[in-house]
Amino acid sequence: MSRLLLLLVLLIPANVFAADADLALNTVWVLVAAALVFFMQTGFALLESGMARSKNAVNVVMKNYMDLCLGSLIFWAVGFGLMFGVNESGFFGTTHLFPQFDSEWPYTFLLFQMLFAATATTIASGAMAERTRYMGYLVGAMVITGVIYPVFGSWAWGGFFGGKGWLAEMGFIDFAGSTVVHAVGAWCALAGILVVGPRLGRFDPVTGKARLIPGHNLNNVALGGFILWLGWFGFNAGSLLQGDASLGKIALNTHLAACAGAASIFLCQALSGRPVLLTLTVNGSLGGLVAITAGCATMSPGYAIVTGAVAGAIVLLGTVMLEMLQLDDAVGAIPVHGFAGVWGTLAAGLFLQPNPFDLHQLGVQAVGSIAAFLWTFPLAFIMYWLLEKSIGLRATHLQQQRGLDFSEHAENGYPEFDSLHLHKPIVR
Amino acid sequence: MSRLLLLLVLLIPANVFAADADLALNTVWVLVAAALVFFMQTGFALLESGMARSKNAVNVVMKNYMDLCLGSLIFWAVGFGLMFGVNESGFFGTTHLFPQFDSEWPYTFLLFQMLFAATATTIASGAMAERTRYMGYLVGAMVITGVIYPVFGSWAWGGFFGGKGWLAEMGFIDFAGSTVVHAVGAWCALAGILVVGPRLGRFDPVTGKARLIPGHNLNNVALGGFILWLGWFGFNAGSLLQGDASLGKIALNTHLAACAGAASIFLCQALSGRPVLLTLTVNGSLGGLVAITAGCATMSPGYAIVTGAVAGAIVLLGTVMLEMLQLDDAVGAIPVHGFAGVWGTLAAGLFLQPNPFDLHQLGVQAVGSIAAFLWTFPLAFIMYWLLEKSIGLRATHLQQQRGLDFSEHAENGYPEFDSLHLHKPIVR
Amino acid sequence: MSRLLLLLVLLIPANVFAADADLALNTVWVLVAAALVFFMQTGFALLESGMARSKNAVNVVMKNYMDLCLGSLIFWAVGFGLMFGVNESGFFGTTHLFPQFDSEWPYTFLLFQMLFAATATTIASGAMAERTRYMGYLVGAMVITGVIYPVFGSWAWGGFFGGKGWLAEMGFIDFAGSTVVHAVGAWCALAGILVVGPRLGRFDPVTGKARLIPGHNLNNVALGGFILWLGWFGFNAGSLLQGDASLGKIALNTHLAACAGAASIFLCQALSGRPVLLTLTVNGSLGGLVAITAGCATMSPGYAIVTGAVAGAIVLLGTVMLEMLQLDDAVGAIPVHGFAGVWGTLAAGLFLQPNPFDLHQLGVQAVGSIAAFLWTFPLAFIMYWLLEKSIGLRATHLQQQRGLDFSEHAENGYPEFDSLHLHKPIVR
Repeated sequence: MSRLLLLLVLLIPANVFAADADLALNTVWVLVAAALVFFMQTGFALLESGMARSKNAVNVVMKNYMDLCLGSLIFWAVGFGLMFGVNESGFFGTTHLFPQFDSEWPYTFLLFQMLFAATATTIASGAMAERTRYMGYLVGAMVITGVIYPVFGSWAWGGFFGGKGWLAEMGFIDFAGSTVVHAVGAWCALAGILVVGPRLGRFDPVTGKARLIPGHNLNNVALGGFILWLGWFGFNAGSLLQGDASLGKIALNTHLAACAGAASIFLCQALSGRPVLLTLTVNGSLGGLVAITAGCATMSPGYAIVTGAVAGAIVLLGTVMLEMLQLDDAVGAIPVHGFAGVWGTLAAGLFLQPNPFDLHQLGVQAVGSIAAFLWTFPLAFIMYWLLEKSIGLRATHLQQQRGLDFSEHAENGYPEFDSLHLHKPIVR
Repeated sequence: MSRLLLLLVLLIPANVFAADADLALNTVWVLVAAALVFFMQTGFALLESGMARSKNAVNVVMKNYMDLCLGSLIFWAVGFGLMFGVNESGFFGTTHLFPQFDSEWPYTFLLFQMLFAATATTIASGAMAERTRYMGYLVGAMVITGVIYPVFGSWAWGGFFGGKGWLAEMGFIDFAGSTVVHAVGAWCALAGILVVGPRLGRFDPVTGKARLIPGHNLNNVALGGFILWLGWFGFNAGSLLQGDASLGKIALNTHLAACAGAASIFLCQALSGRPVLLTLTVNGSLGGLVAITAGCATMSPGYAIVTGAVAGAIVLLGTVMLEMLQLDDAVGAIPVHGFAGVWGTLAAGLFLQPNPFDLHQLGVQAVGSIAAFLWTFPLAFIMYWLLEKSIGLRATHLQQQRGLDFSEHAENGYPEFDSLHLHKPIVR
Repeated sequence: MSRLLLLLVLLIPANVFAADADLALNTVWVLVAAALVFFMQTGFALLESGMARSKNAVNVVMKNYMDLCLGSLIFWAVGFGLMFGVNESGFFGTTHLFPQFDSEWPYTFLLFQMLFAATATTIASGAMAERTRYMGYLVGAMVITGVIYPVFGSWAWGGFFGGKGWLAEMGFIDFAGSTVVHAVGAWCALAGILVVGPRLGRFDPVTGKARLIPGHNLNNVALGGFILWLGWFGFNAGSLLQGDASLGKIALNTHLAACAGAASIFLCQALSGRPVLLTLTVNGSLGGLVAITAGCATMSPGYAIVTGAVAGAIVLLGTVMLEMLQLDDAVGAIPVHGFAGVWGTLAAGLFLQPNPFDLHQLGVQAVGSIAAFLWTFPLAFIMYWLLEKSIGLRATHLQQQRGLDFSEHAENGYPEFDSLHLHKPIVR
């Protein structure tokens, strides 16, 4: 009995201590991951502005910058409570608006989730680039961050403070958000480009054939792609919300899927005798990253490579398909975040360890994917339609011709290099 | 008694083990934070060169690059001892020049503080950009890193190896350096622009009205702003010098204040019907970051938002004010780091948990702010004045017209895109 | 006896718990370090494309992007097993091809090492820039990542799963890879530039004198340099493979050596009355980083400064020497990674604590350096020669004149700023 007592005494402080140490390490890790996710916003800004023409470079970056700033404040005030507050119905949280916490961990969790919300929101900025007005875009971004994203999020990830989302209840697997973050963002983007229409001159008015509008800085596209990839280590491995030995496999899967996404789109181009494009290749790796996001914690590296490789091909096909449908996605956000996001969500079910190819799980994954579309797309479409009809969303022909930097910000991204020499600095 | 013994035996190794584990985690965290603070130098370089004209882009970047390199060596040799050595007088440390340590932790601490010193120093490079000669600037930077910054730092943060600074003794709160780093850097910058004078053509010689000199690459300005923001997670949360659960709130406050700073300057511009400028908006978020730096560990997120929002407005007003005074701060460093730094130092007292609005604390904060100005500004002014009179600080008219890249480095940042086509590569 | 029992009981769980906590912390740290090493690829891409002409910017970046993607997959499949599998001969591993692991730690280790392999491989891309065809380069990169690098690596670092490399057996010190990563990469680069020849117009056909081919974006060169430096904190301190208090000194040495490398090349330029060039200065700091890589864990900060300062001078001399030999290294990769790598390997022996200046150790270091050259250079030379003779490596005169972006990728990095206005977007 005295030994039993001894063991009891021994175990109690060890556990208490372990909890403290774990909390500290978890905080450090999730904070590092949050910083990496924050940096993804930079990646989006560079990738999108690099793919746009120089006359819209400031506008694209400023959309990313301000949707992060305004979105973070809105998510703090409203979105976090909707997403993670006590979720009795399974459809949204009802507590923790303007949250105050008694303990320390929820602050870290809030920061991490706030940056996820900003990621979901900013996806639309790229697809709708070069013809969407600034104020209309920002109002839309606030609605996404404050309502559309967190409500769906509560279905899959909700109930941090009690209750559980209905998709989580079904066993839906979306570890870091192929659906919750990326597909939701992409369906908002799809609604947006349907409402706002294609860029002036994007499709031939007679034949309807797509015309290339090359981005002004492909170096920045690659830099943006690299930064997004870097941030994804935090995005995926941070979603464990713990500093733990299992992080290694999550991060390895993330990296391999990105490599495989780029490799597969590279091979598709090279084997078909076409030139290997930087823009498509970067998007291939991003498609791999989006796809592995759902299942990165629950599949083996071999399947992660398969997931990424298929995603690369999907990005290529999706890009071609959108062009054929005369849908103008300026940066390929919908193939990358939407189509690869759906594939990744299904792949998380297909390749689930230790029971891969389970049809029931695949069905649950499909339900989650469909639910995301049915919730997000109509709501975003109505929202953008109302914005177009009220404060205005689509830039006029003249504004597009002059560029949104001039019409919306009265700034010129590169005043000295402008081939039109309209805004030369007076003093040189 | 045997149980008492048991508990004693139990506690000793647990504490010893805890200390080891804590030290390892603290080292990992502070090292990550140091890397993030290092990256801020990159942010400064891009922001400042993006706001400069292309003919000075190399020069601006090279000032940031070399003040880091030379400054780190000087701080290792002299500054660290002055700032953190045994501080019996309360006014400077007297030990640990060319430091050697018996234990491991001080090496981590030294690296972190070295990068803080580089941050303070490089602030002046932006304000004085486009007309300050290279060697004069670098000598000044070494004096700041080696003497001006560490001596003031010892007042607020000194006594790592014994003793205590007089401001710390009074209860001055400056958690991560709104005053110690940012205001000190800004008052050096103010002294610098007074000595070196405005850029050629910045103010109308007849009316005295400011003329816009647009930066050559606003994409890089935004990239620099993003990188600075990213680095600030390390700057503020790293200043706890521990891997700890309380980091989350510090980082959240940091992020919210940055968002609020940008949001407030955005609203000021939008509500007054003016175009929303990228440059001002980025500076608004940086003002929020500077302001929250002092109080990020001791205020609630709601007050962090207030702190940031006020800082955004201060940056806007300060920018206008400097123009009216015909002071040419090429990047807005003085409003961002100086005015917002003073505000943040006061806000750390005003919003101090659990006793906000304590007048005594506010008084102490004011004393610290005034002391920083009185120590830094006159010393930096004399230093720059001596440099101007000896090796020369202000570039000549011809040098400014040709650009400092040509006159100081014989390099051209963008030889192929130069509209004057003076430096075309021979082979193409 | 009961106390003895008590102590035993006490110690067992404490150790078990400590191991768990250590594993978690080690995983977090090595993962963060891996992310930083990943980011180095971005640094290489920007540095190299910035030093190239704009007509080759896409091609340079795409080489970095795809050698990472394909190389990671190859290293996963083959290279990791060759390098770290059971190494009975001391010359290569024979297990763990397409690895599966029973425990969690090896996944983290694999990711970290995969990114090291990518670093070694991508060094050649810069030296061979502006005249090397895409497919030939990529095939070469796969051979380096899959065979050349891992086999040499197994000599110095092999035997993770059993056995030991012959250089490790001799006591060869190369903590993070001055030789294993950097010199091996540089000797591949040297072989490459010998096979592929200089860029069109690099040397005067009559006098043989080198002609300057200025890089198109020096801002990006500096950004790339900063990012590489940032990544090196992960590269060197991550190589401890533990979250530990001794990381601080490793990181500090890394930083000081970089500063000293830049400072010494700065002083060489300034004292000789020459203009201080951005390109050379950045390469000086990179030389310092390469040199400290071998000995960063086993020397004092003072010696780290010496190591870096000498490396800076070596980079300068090496750059001049290569030009005199009419070897066209487009970015200075061979002086930085090769010559400074050899110096750093020797310095790790010379300045070894606590027994510096031990001739036996110096001899071992020399053996390792020579072995690296003898293994890498001939093999890489034959490989590139075979590639040139089969699928082709050197771009034709016409391709070089038009630029590899056009000939290899049918893309233009900056279509709007092209001074030739060949690829203007149709719609504006």
